[in-house]
Amino acid sequence: MTDEVHEECGVFGVMTPESCDVARLTYYGLHSLQHRGQESCGIVVDSVDGTWSHKGMGLIGEVFTREVLDLAPKGRISVGHVRYGTTGGSNIINCQPLEIRHERGNFSIVHNGNLTNTCGMRKSLEKTGSILHTTSDTEVIAYAIIREALTADSMEDAVSRAMESIKGAYSLLIMTEDRIICVRDPHGFRPLIYGKMSDGTVVVASESCALTTVGAEPVRDLDPGEILTIGPDGIVSRREHCGTRPRRSCVFEYIYFARTDSVIDGVSVHAARIRSGIELARSSPVEADVVIGVPDAGTDAALGYSRESGIPFGIGLLKSRYVGRTFISPGQDERVRGVWLKLSVIKETVSGKRVVLVDDSIVRGTTMRRIVKLLREAGAKEIHIRISAPPFTNPCYYGTDVGSRKGLIACDYSIPEITRILDADSIGYLPLEKLSTLVGCDEYCSACFDAEYPLPIDGDMSADV
Amino acid sequence: MTDEVHEECGVFGVMTPESCDVARLTYYGLHSLQHRGQESCGIVVDSVDGTWSHKGMGLIGEVFTREVLDLAPKGRISVGHVRYGTTGGSNIINCQPLEIRHERGNFSIVHNGNLTNTCGMRKSLEKTGSILHTTSDTEVIAYAIIREALTADSMEDAVSRAMESIKGAYSLLIMTEDRIICVRDPHGFRPLIYGKMSDGTVVVASESCALTTVGAEPVRDLDPGEILTIGPDGIVSRREHCGTRPRRSCVFEYIYFARTDSVIDGVSVHAARIRSGIELARSSPVEADVVIGVPDAGTDAALGYSRESGIPFGIGLLKSRYVGRTFISPGQDERVRGVWLKLSVIKETVSGKRVVLVDDSIVRGTTMRRIVKLLREAGAKEIHIRISAPPFTNPCYYGTDVGSRKGLIACDYSIPEITRILDADSIGYLPLEKLSTLVGCDEYCSACFDAEYPLPIDGDMSADV
Amino acid sequence: MTDEVHEECGVFGVMTPESCDVARLTYYGLHSLQHRGQESCGIVVDSVDGTWSHKGMGLIGEVFTREVLDLAPKGRISVGHVRYGTTGGSNIINCQPLEIRHERGNFSIVHNGNLTNTCGMRKSLEKTGSILHTTSDTEVIAYAIIREALTADSMEDAVSRAMESIKGAYSLLIMTEDRIICVRDPHGFRPLIYGKMSDGTVVVASESCALTTVGAEPVRDLDPGEILTIGPDGIVSRREHCGTRPRRSCVFEYIYFARTDSVIDGVSVHAARIRSGIELARSSPVEADVVIGVPDAGTDAALGYSRESGIPFGIGLLKSRYVGRTFISPGQDERVRGVWLKLSVIKETVSGKRVVLVDDSIVRGTTMRRIVKLLREAGAKEIHIRISAPPFTNPCYYGTDVGSRKGLIACDYSIPEITRILDADSIGYLPLEKLSTLVGCDEYCSACFDAEYPLPIDGDMSADV
Amino acid sequence: MTDEVHEECGVFGVMTPESCDVARLTYYGLHSLQHRGQESCGIVVDSVDGTWSHKGMGLIGEVFTREVLDLAPKGRISVGHVRYGTTGGSNIINCQPLEIRHERGNFSIVHNGNLTNTCGMRKSLEKTGSILHTTSDTEVIAYAIIREALTADSMEDAVSRAMESIKGAYSLLIMTEDRIICVRDPHGFRPLIYGKMSDGTVVVASESCALTTVGAEPVRDLDPGEILTIGPDGIVSRREHCGTRPRRSCVFEYIYFARTDSVIDGVSVHAARIRSGIELARSSPVEADVVIGVPDAGTDAALGYSRESGIPFGIGLLKSRYVGRTFISPGQDERVRGVWLKLSVIKETVSGKRVVLVDDSIVRGTTMRRIVKLLREAGAKEIHIRISAPPFTNPCYYGTDVGSRKGLIACDYSIPEITRILDADSIGYLPLEKLSTLVGCDEYCSACFDAEYPLPIDGDMSADV
Repeated sequence: MTDEVHEECGVFGVMTPESCDVARLTYYGLHSLQHRGQESCGIVVDSVDGTWSHKGMGLIGEVFTREVLDLAPKGRISVGHVRYGTTGGSNIINCQPLEIRHERGNFSIVHNGNLTNTCGMRKSLEKTGSILHTTSDTEVIAYAIIREALTADSMEDAVSRAMESIKGAYSLLIMTEDRIICVRDPHGFRPLIYGKMSDGTVVVASESCALTTVGAEPVRDLDPGEILTIGPDGIVSRREHCGTRPRRSCVFEYIYFARTDSVIDGVSVHAARIRSGIELARSSPVEADVVIGVPDAGTDAALGYSRESGIPFGIGLLKSRYVGRTFISPGQDERVRGVWLKLSVIKETVSGKRVVLVDDSIVRGTTMRRIVKLLREAGAKEIHIRISAPPFTNPCYYGTDVGSRKGLIACDYSIPEITRILDADSIGYLPLEKLSTLVGCDEYCSACFDAEYPLPIDGDMSADV
Repeated sequence: MTDEVHEECGVFGVMTPESCDVARLTYYGLHSLQHRGQESCGIVVDSVDGTWSHKGMGLIGEVFTREVLDLAPKGRISVGHVRYGTTGGSNIINCQPLEIRHERGNFSIVHNGNLTNTCGMRKSLEKTGSILHTTSDTEVIAYAIIREALTADSMEDAVSRAMESIKGAYSLLIMTEDRIICVRDPHGFRPLIYGKMSDGTVVVASESCALTTVGAEPVRDLDPGEILTIGPDGIVSRREHCGTRPRRSCVFEYIYFARTDSVIDGVSVHAARIRSGIELARSSPVEADVVIGVPDAGTDAALGYSRESGIPFGIGLLKSRYVGRTFISPGQDERVRGVWLKLSVIKETVSGKRVVLVDDSIVRGTTMRRIVKLLREAGAKEIHIRISAPPFTNPCYYGTDVGSRKGLIACDYSIPEITRILDADSIGYLPLEKLSTLVGCDEYCSACFDAEYPLPIDGDMSADV
Repeated sequence: MTDEVHEECGVFGVMTPESCDVARLTYYGLHSLQHRGQESCGIVVDSVDGTWSHKGMGLIGEVFTREVLDLAPKGRISVGHVRYGTTGGSNIINCQPLEIRHERGNFSIVHNGNLTNTCGMRKSLEKTGSILHTTSDTEVIAYAIIREALTADSMEDAVSRAMESIKGAYSLLIMTEDRIICVRDPHGFRPLIYGKMSDGTVVVASESCALTTVGAEPVRDLDPGEILTIGPDGIVSRREHCGTRPRRSCVFEYIYFARTDSVIDGVSVHAARIRSGIELARSSPVEADVVIGVPDAGTDAALGYSRESGIPFGIGLLKSRYVGRTFISPGQDERVRGVWLKLSVIKETVSGKRVVLVDDSIVRGTTMRRIVKLLREAGAKEIHIRISAPPFTNPCYYGTDVGSRKGLIACDYSIPEITRILDADSIGYLPLEKLSTLVGCDEYCSACFDAEYPLPIDGDMSADV
Repeated sequence: MTDEVHEECGVFGVMTPESCDVARLTYYGLHSLQHRGQESCGIVVDSVDGTWSHKGMGLIGEVFTREVLDLAPKGRISVGHVRYGTTGGSNIINCQPLEIRHERGNFSIVHNGNLTNTCGMRKSLEKTGSILHTTSDTEVIAYAIIREALTADSMEDAVSRAMESIKGAYSLLIMTEDRIICVRDPHGFRPLIYGKMSDGTVVVASESCALTTVGAEPVRDLDPGEILTIGPDGIVSRREHCGTRPRRSCVFEYIYFARTDSVIDGVSVHAARIRSGIELARSSPVEADVVIGVPDAGTDAALGYSRESGIPFGIGLLKSRYVGRTFISPGQDERVRGVWLKLSVIKETVSGKRVVLVDDSIVRGTTMRRIVKLLREAGAKEIHIRISAPPFTNPCYYGTDVGSRKGLIACDYSIPEITRILDADSIGYLPLEKLSTLVGCDEYCSACFDAEYPLPIDGDMSADV
């Protein structure tokens, strides 16, 4: 059982005015979305010689070698995907883009999010004689679209009608041979933003950092419920699903998932994290000598805490650049059992000091306990843990993975108990009511902290989780 | 031509009181020395069934998979190596440890450094009928030892006599079947430190971070010229070469090479870097709104600059965790030509600000020019570059790689010219005379900054470089 | 364009009385069917922990390494497949077994053969809202079964009803969690045979050689149209489709495809090949000094020719054991352009001799021309080509691949012309009317020789070929 | 312990009048020598840009992929090697060609054979300060040459003087930058032949089949002791070592090792094998219905036996084309324990028959026992084993590998006992005195049959074996 929270996916799409090396643009875009999913990835290109695709298990840099990229044809449209993968299992067959060949038109689809009514829809599709090949809910979405396409006037119509039946979190890119149809679910759980280059190229991605990386200027985030077509007629928006549901964008994107240089729904992620540190310094002040963050995500909030409290900011923990997919098993031998490669302490910074240790979350507590132990061994006199989010107590059904409620330390123990378990001198969480300060509005989903789920959950699913 | 300076190697050795999983200990130790060399690596273990070894091109985590580690036998002695590799080329045959089978006794040898009289020694060995199989100078050292071993009383004697003929920078571990002979050259160019675990295990490594990672407490650095045997008679030091030459430890270890959590010759690397930032703030002050560092190495000095100047420290550049060995080629297409995956700007931090940008060195200037451009595009009003080292003007012959003098920006241009080339508002370097403040003494080699080479260079070599 | 005829597939299934290492049995069985398909292969096992499967591109020995086989769980049922692959392209997604998950029951399916009404069935399935993921006709069969399963009482009923709609050549194994349903199409185009081991294990395979390899005694071939269930109720046969169509087993199985140690529909393949040589000696006699065969398939017929004619049998051509997947490209250079690794001449056998050269077929003629040239260079005085089959003039739509009619030498040229093109002294083919002597009956398909197709062909298909 | 005899190596070299794709010529040549060694291979090319080499573990077709061959530069000289590998172990470091860089001149060396005084030479080299990196005796040869080269006038002189000190079996190619020096040891244990193409290209190889494959006409075998230089002065022969020792070419080359289409020292291998069958029919006649051979090597002798005895030749055993490097482990389960993929019986040929079964050798007897069992199960009434060589009773020290005398069935049992152990009806071996009929002269080594070793064996070596 992992001690981390995982985002499930990132999507990227591009349409250029002239045929060019679109696969490479998608490759670069996905690279900057790698933090959203490291298990598998894929790219589809539409070229004059038909559709080219490549998918595989692993990081972008592993799956798309020089040889693969050199084989990709030139074209004007491409979409790509990075995936972490919970619903559906980690399997090559669940890699996206999912490519659909059908007499109503071929299309490729990529999906960030998670449906909440997959089970029911699967059963109903099978009862009318369909076979689902994958276990991912992306295929369910594709089926919903195809079933509507049999009688709809256009793919956009089919998509709009399919949105009546699919429930849950979804940011989608649907690539046909001449357009990309971009969809954000009516709650707007997952982000989706588009931008432009000076030559007229249009780019759409899960996060603005992917736009900036390829040199595109962000235009705006899609609105919840919006269907945006990037195609031969320019950029066309359909809004019949907009406003049908309350906006509920994921607050955890700001706290942890998104890259610190992204701007989501108008709010800088880096700034939000610094504000969380500031709020934390206000709500959980402490006398100390140094503030350090757990890299990478805790650093921004630590800086905010330092600024507000006036306690000097220090670099006290070093994260290995090479740990990646390294095999780490402590072995049978006692000498190697305690070895930890991921984080090292910079003794100079913490020895003899009262330390404020800032991180973004405590999931099961094993990592944090280990960090506290390292700091104590390095001579830290006091350790005050500050978490830039409220206690994590509920599973997410909208596209992130924290496994079951079982083992979440904040479910099982009180704050004094957690303090003792982690061997800290004090623990402070960000108060629930301060989340709005962070995001700058009240229209977010914080179900993982307060169990206020904006959408009911499919019975089988909650049982499963 | 690369725009970086590379360390050539890292070494690690361990001897345990009882047979255990020593390969895994070496694996963990090398993991924390990975920054010293990423091209190849290797581990040798002495077990009751003979010598086991495994070497390969790539990172520790790539070469030593779970399967390989599971195959490694238990034993009491092991040495390992990570390598960047200039002299000798990047080739599997040059991977270390180099294993020598000889009727005077078998041994394995690992080497961090670079000899300055390799050419002459090679010729003289060949003229007496020897064949050298590799192009690395480690084989030359092995030969020098074997030639002496033919008449010497012990391996230590042979090593000591060989040190008369080999010139240059070398930190060596020589593993025989019952001991590890550790050697640091009389100038002490490269670091070498040993430590102990509570159970009596002795560990020796290029940097103290490797000791800490495996749970060993540092005892002390080897003295320049020292021969230290870790063996059946405990730890025995021979000092006949100590003091024969002035100590000249490499200042660039503190500025750039070493891991920030290491302590070398008694000086904390992190503290040295913060001091370099403090000195920089004193010698090159400027009015500005934020101080940012180029990750990873510039961050410490940026913090020092911020502390001394009172200008707020900010996080303005993000280094991708995934760029590693990713294939990056901008392609033919203009749209992809400008893409840069390695670093992104956090606009929030720099937009509309006067920025102090701290890095550890400028080699050819291409990277720095790119960073300045990114910052300007993100809205930085002024950019003041501060380098935590003097201008880099001379090649190093003692175990680091910066290629030739040709193309070093500080050789070809004056500071005002560099400022203009990089499109900065000002540039400040650390004054040469402040290096002593950094290291805390005067006994260092700073030839790369001042051309005062402690040892004459073999004719062919300087021509070659 | 290849100069060979390819079989498309081989199937293997096994059910044991007790849980055991069934994957390994299937592995061995598929190994002896490797000649029927070398592009991809796969095995499915039903175990107490669910279904395990592994598929991949390549030979059995490449895809199923020791590690993979060691991972396979124990179970009582397994089916496997080797594939050459024309319809559907060479792609991992078309690898079989095809695994179907559906609320009417999960099953895995393997298929040897080729449907003739795939296009029409695809369109009709898509028009009722289905998505086909692969381009293979096996998925069409699976869909046909599922559509019937929605209302059928049992899987056998569903299969039987699906057989009303699917047309063409098919030998199928359908594995559910407790049985294997074996099906041979009403014409019996492709072989399918089952057998037993002494412990009650039942084995079914494309050819008897796979039964013998795993130690099973052949019981009998399935009858055309038969549905045979190997399951909890023992072996149950359903015969409602038997006799609805004339038996038309493929004569080319005897001539070329099948392994010489197999017995198909009661006729030994080796004996049939020797008989073809005997008939050839009668219909195309010649005065000569030695009879040689083109290995491997021509050897048996050469032996028959020698026996009947009294001309000594010799070994004149050597086929390389290592040529397999070796990359062979003659390069730009003239020196390497003429190199041929596949076959060498044994000069001793042919020098100065009048040679009868026996092979099973001439497709495009390039290979045969090359052989004749080699023999002439080795000193053969006369070369009399004898082919143990009639001239090959028509494409096959029932599961073998010879590409289009275009380029078939026997379509474009008369026998005297072919003799001249190949630089032979004479050519003799087996007379069409002698095929019955070979097979021992008249109920075979010889459409590739006489264009008498037992089943009409789907319009698109013949256009395509 | 293997039940086969292995040849250790094959060598190939080529020199062309103009620069061309020599690597590809060597690749094709080695391909036809693959039967002489399947463990590793390598090619070296001398080009205007220096020496290019590639080596690896595996078959030629695995190590030399299209990509590798495309990287090889053009040049005029190349040598290559295939290796089985006993002395020295199966290790990448022992792959040949061995490349020597030395101030007396660089050269690459390939070797087929085995020295008998390696141990003594190793010790003496090490005592004068040399380090041997490999465990192969090829490095010892290289050292012997280099030691002489220090004072010799030419490489040929150095080679000639080195031949005074090295003892044993060796066919060598030594490639310098402008020539190939070919050497056959004074006994001529291993074959070596050269030939020419019409354009002046000269080719040298272990067997004539490699010459024929690349389109070269054989000129003649090297004489025992000959040093032949293919270089700028044409083809120059030095004969000072010729005639210093009795010719002792290996009789097992004819019986088993060589490819049947090769001609060695003027004798056709195929013809020799047929003669061995004829002699066998004379010395061990039997009444029977069919003669079959164990493929591949037994087939020729079976044909000879059939011709002389008048008993019909049949094809009774089929060797799998796909078994190659397939992983075969019978597993724990009884059902799979008896499976054998390598050979299958053609029942048609042997059922109810009295069978003469011809093979080239019985090493440990396990394979033969298995074949007899298969034939009995297929209904053979009688089985008369005939071996086309005398009983195999002694290890070979001249370049072939049969492991130790321990376990050789002919050492431990009498012929009646072997007959019983193998469950045969009779066994007949070729009489020792008939070997001359096979080779056509008396100047061969048959130590493996009669222990008459032409050269004394190094003490350690015989102990080792």
